[in-house]
Amino acid sequence: MPGRFLHVRAICEYDGTNYFGFQIQADKPTIQGQLELVLARLTGEQIRIRYAGRTDTGVHGLGQVIALNTGWRHPIADLERAWNALLPTDIAVRGVELVSNPQFHPRYSARSRVYEYTIWRAPWRSPLHSRFAHHDPRPLDVNAMNQAAGLLLGSRDFSSFGQPTQGESTVREVLTAMWVEDGYLLRFRIEANAYLRRMVRSIVGTLLEAGAGMRPVDSISDLLMARNRALAGKPAPANGLCLVKVNY
Amino acid sequence: MPGRFLHVRAICEYDGTNYFGFQIQADKPTIQGQLELVLARLTGEQIRIRYAGRTDTGVHGLGQVIALNTGWRHPIADLERAWNALLPTDIAVRGVELVSNPQFHPRYSARSRVYEYTIWRAPWRSPLHSRFAHHDPRPLDVNAMNQAAGLLLGSRDFSSFGQPTQGESTVREVLTAMWVEDGYLLRFRIEANAYLRRMVRSIVGTLLEAGAGMRPVDSISDLLMARNRALAGKPAPANGLCLVKVNY
Repeated sequence: MPGRFLHVRAICEYDGTNYFGFQIQADKPTIQGQLELVLARLTGEQIRIRYAGRTDTGVHGLGQVIALNTGWRHPIADLERAWNALLPTDIAVRGVELVSNPQFHPRYSARSRVYEYTIWRAPWRSPLHSRFAHHDPRPLDVNAMNQAAGLLLGSRDFSSFGQPTQGESTVREVLTAMWVEDGYLLRFRIEANAYLRRMVRSIVGTLLEAGAGMRPVDSISDLLMARNRALAGKPAPANGLCLVKVNY
Repeated sequence: MPGRFLHVRAICEYDGTNYFGFQIQADKPTIQGQLELVLARLTGEQIRIRYAGRTDTGVHGLGQVIALNTGWRHPIADLERAWNALLPTDIAVRGVELVSNPQFHPRYSARSRVYEYTIWRAPWRSPLHSRFAHHDPRPLDVNAMNQAAGLLLGSRDFSSFGQPTQGESTVREVLTAMWVEDGYLLRFRIEANAYLRRMVRSIVGTLLEAGAGMRPVDSISDLLMARNRALAGKPAPANGLCLVKVNY
């Protein structure tokens, strides 16, 4: 009886280093796979988790949003405790709660997603930062990178920076795109209504080329108009990327 | 001919998670073991590295100082590049340079060492922080912890907090001991001329008990006078500890 099922939502944080992305795959470790495996042990049910954004192999999550239906009969706080106790240390859930709106879907209800890409800029590589930051020791003109980022704001066709998952529109609306310096760390924060596949990493790779003087700042506008992925910069590596927040 | 040997010094950074401490051991992976293994491949020499401070299993290093003698004939910058290229990603060296004073010894020449211990205070565990921060979700009175830390300053007998490596004096001089809050992170910074074994982790464990209301602040003075390790708090876990800097 569907009426007995709880509608549950949660936030999921993960170190993606050892996983083949969020989405479940046969015979490969994924975040979704681990979450569902533990849920099956706890509930005896085969539960399919819904989520806000697929993240690629090696990409991290701080504020991934997930939802599920379950016949769990105990207090919801017990589900959070038991789930975390059985998950591996590189995956955790928090804020497990009942959803008041049964129409809630982490992906379709989302207004925007915030990603952060972190660069370690020192001349030496840093073992304490290497899991979550891409090492780029080149001298970078951060002002130029912020000017270039500003050209991405608004509703634009981003087909030069990625491809749609299912052949739909390639227009996305970017609400924020800025670089912030923090000592040897340099962080790119981007908020958009949604993203094409590889879009953030392609944007970061392209803006790094602008920062390194390999690409004029105003060439970004031409690049957007070209609608040609071959003209964008090489996508930056996965380890620097993190899905920080999903807004509803 | 010893005169042909170079006296070299460097800073070593490492993620200690997967190592049995800094000091070399037979049949167990250690930081020193990895450093020497790569040096042997590069130079063909059996080089014994000297270092400022032994760190325990699972403890990290940001500013460990090392020194060595080698017959290396190429530019010293090439040694740094080649060494880092062959080291695993969780160990790196930087600032590899010739030592002007041949009497320099990373341990015996050091004036003081700075350690930092990091706590993750949120109610939930954090996969993005778990490698480098100990999770303690208890409500903590940080003012009480700083008052207690202040009682450790100066030259004191720390035998309640650790044991000497070789039966020498148990008096150490603590120059700084303070807690700093940074969102859900809480960091303990301690600078001392030297440390007894397990001293920082025993101090952190004890100050956490004071912060959690399990031990009165002024009991720290009695604890120092007792010279009895059984009365101190349980040593805090290794993963939160990092050797940050060595001063000469």
